[in-house]
Amino acid sequence: MTELDPADQQLARDLDRAHVFHSWSAQGALNPLVFAGGEGARLWDFEGTQYLDMSSQLVNVNIGYQHPKVVAAIKAQADVLTTIDPKHANLARGRAAQLIVEKANLTGAEFEKVFFTNGGADANENAIRLARLYTGRDTVLSTYRSYHGNTGAAIVATGDWRRMPNQYARGHVHFFGPYLYRSEFWAETEEQESERALHHLERVIQAEGPDTIAALLIETVPGTAGILVPPPGYLEGVRELATRYGIVLIADEVMAGFGRTGEWFAHQGFGVTPDLITFAKGVNSGYVPMGGVIIPPAIAHAFDERVFPGGLTYSGHPLAAASVVATIEAMTDEGIVENAKRIGDVAIGPALDALKAKHPELIGEVRGLGCFWAMELVADAASRAPLPDAVMAGIRSALVGRGVLPFVQNNRIHVVPPLVVTEGEISEAFGHYDAVLSEIRLS
Amino acid sequence: MTELDPADQQLARDLDRAHVFHSWSAQGALNPLVFAGGEGARLWDFEGTQYLDMSSQLVNVNIGYQHPKVVAAIKAQADVLTTIDPKHANLARGRAAQLIVEKANLTGAEFEKVFFTNGGADANENAIRLARLYTGRDTVLSTYRSYHGNTGAAIVATGDWRRMPNQYARGHVHFFGPYLYRSEFWAETEEQESERALHHLERVIQAEGPDTIAALLIETVPGTAGILVPPPGYLEGVRELATRYGIVLIADEVMAGFGRTGEWFAHQGFGVTPDLITFAKGVNSGYVPMGGVIIPPAIAHAFDERVFPGGLTYSGHPLAAASVVATIEAMTDEGIVENAKRIGDVAIGPALDALKAKHPELIGEVRGLGCFWAMELVADAASRAPLPDAVMAGIRSALVGRGVLPFVQNNRIHVVPPLVVTEGEISEAFGHYDAVLSEIRLS
Repeated sequence: MTELDPADQQLARDLDRAHVFHSWSAQGALNPLVFAGGEGARLWDFEGTQYLDMSSQLVNVNIGYQHPKVVAAIKAQADVLTTIDPKHANLARGRAAQLIVEKANLTGAEFEKVFFTNGGADANENAIRLARLYTGRDTVLSTYRSYHGNTGAAIVATGDWRRMPNQYARGHVHFFGPYLYRSEFWAETEEQESERALHHLERVIQAEGPDTIAALLIETVPGTAGILVPPPGYLEGVRELATRYGIVLIADEVMAGFGRTGEWFAHQGFGVTPDLITFAKGVNSGYVPMGGVIIPPAIAHAFDERVFPGGLTYSGHPLAAASVVATIEAMTDEGIVENAKRIGDVAIGPALDALKAKHPELIGEVRGLGCFWAMELVADAASRAPLPDAVMAGIRSALVGRGVLPFVQNNRIHVVPPLVVTEGEISEAFGHYDAVLSEIRLS
Repeated sequence: MTELDPADQQLARDLDRAHVFHSWSAQGALNPLVFAGGEGARLWDFEGTQYLDMSSQLVNVNIGYQHPKVVAAIKAQADVLTTIDPKHANLARGRAAQLIVEKANLTGAEFEKVFFTNGGADANENAIRLARLYTGRDTVLSTYRSYHGNTGAAIVATGDWRRMPNQYARGHVHFFGPYLYRSEFWAETEEQESERALHHLERVIQAEGPDTIAALLIETVPGTAGILVPPPGYLEGVRELATRYGIVLIADEVMAGFGRTGEWFAHQGFGVTPDLITFAKGVNSGYVPMGGVIIPPAIAHAFDERVFPGGLTYSGHPLAAASVVATIEAMTDEGIVENAKRIGDVAIGPALDALKAKHPELIGEVRGLGCFWAMELVADAASRAPLPDAVMAGIRSALVGRGVLPFVQNNRIHVVPPLVVTEGEISEAFGHYDAVLSEIRLS
């Protein structure tokens, strides 16, 4: 821990309130936390207060805070060349692309190229662009329970409330994905949910007209929407529908990718290969902004003679690329993806089951895999009515007060720690979850 | 210069061709240059070949390559905390916002807050979003000769060819801006061009319906479109029209801002204050991806109670923010903005005039200010027919062969060096421009 000046705590807060306009918020009542540094799954503020992180910030710090190899790689690249026009070749960028393709091909796929962006939103924008130009079709199908980014097309592909004030793009149609706990299909088993969700999707494709549909854009495991692990057979069925109707299947692995589910890419755990993969977040844990699209030969070479009409100044940014190389190498060498899987199997999963058994009236469902889990809190177990926002805000405050940084979304707590988290840390966090849930009294 | 391995030259090129999908290009015939490092206005490759840079890459490296203070700030922040959720407060982010607002207010404006993005495209996306929500109107007016970014709304706000395959957003209308050399208004003087361009804009506003128009989005000095310095009175007239019709005036200063024109923001040199300013590129010379929107109190506080429906994982990224702080401080301390102005006045401007005098048949017009200039090359001075693409490609190759990295766009050479360029370097570059232009033989 470097030396901290407690005065910086208030200064950071004051400057923030004076001059920083915040995402997805009303600006008036914000009371942000301040962090001075971190290591592994822990953060601290300028007053030395420590926090155990169960959020990975926006589910992006997969490798944990301040991984020494990634920090060293950023510093080394900073000494050499921070930035270069994407039209020139760059060694760090080439190496990053090679490693990303290698991981995408681990289970036998044959991806070839990477188009780099600054984050997940423009990754999805460019995947949509590729799909439209490749197919000559317009429509993009995506689910209501999804988030794909905040820019023009990505925000309209998004299904949740964030789309609603931003619907300025045409060519987007939404459908319902599987979510047995709150089924849209009157299903009672996972098998039924999967079958009916696929039937619904095929009916939407047919009703829209298969020849109009460029892309099917799905989060492999929808994240912010609730960590909705697809039931057996669903992703295989989606793949089959996309193939049958000539639709480009885009897997948005911005949140689910790079180890979060205990696989390098979430789809690899379901035995399904999409046509395009979008990524960001975990690719370098957000140490430097970076995202991109992984492209197979058929789509890449469709643009050998034809101009691809998309681009950005920082595509394949050297500093970001160097951090990607170091991140992937460190995650490989240190078995971090394997740790994510193991922690899910032996720590988070069992701990969530135990917590649910202890609080059966409050926890409606737990679900997840790897380091990607949700517990759904309800006011009434029978009706599954969500716990009210005010109660959830109280839970969040109580956890923060206990030194746990939680990820609270609607009526859910997402348990999404850095993938380097230990069993001891999970146990510690669940002690606090239990204590806080035990204090809840619903009137 | 760190030690270079010549083998890395071919490796970088091979990895690029194998695995990197490029912006705005057909992928088949690319033959990218490779750069290993740089300093000031010079770059070198792995074989030790040096290049004098007259491009600033994509007109973003305003402070020059590898400025030691910015590199040091990135490394220092990398040691402390690379990334944090935008919802928490961060000291580097708060300082960056404070400095940006301070520079935006140099000439008496009263901007208050900054919404940070990853680059210029999402800066424009969020400025458009703010304008639409603030006014309750839909339409965004922008010029045909413009580039505003590659994402959903930004690419449709863009006027040039890059919009055409990407028109999936509604609510965009385009108009013609002033460009006396190729006037759309049959004008013969700057005064006439300014008056008629304003008349045209007002007629578009009236014909679209003033109450439908949320924003007027303009590059203060259109950049990629040709460095089209607005004639006297034009920007004042645009400001007056925006005010009269209650339209939010967004100045896209992604390329023109942060010293490029010899002012911190280009509009400051024209005595005009926009309602929103978008920035990226020069804010930190692209050392780490960063952009944003500068917001006045009226618009910022309209979202005190109401949720702002936009955001992104890396909004106000600490590593980027630290590089912004160091960049603005170094540019201030070292008089880099003043140098840009001086170099334009005493070096680039006179050198372009002399070059035009020597090649009157080939150079149709020169124009610009600060370190932001264009020479327009024509096949025929009378008809102003652009020099063909193949000839321009030859010019580019010849300049690269002579160790000058040029910015060639359509029939123009943009002279857009880093703002730290010296008079001697300008003189050196113009020696090469002259030599290459002297070799052109038009059949």
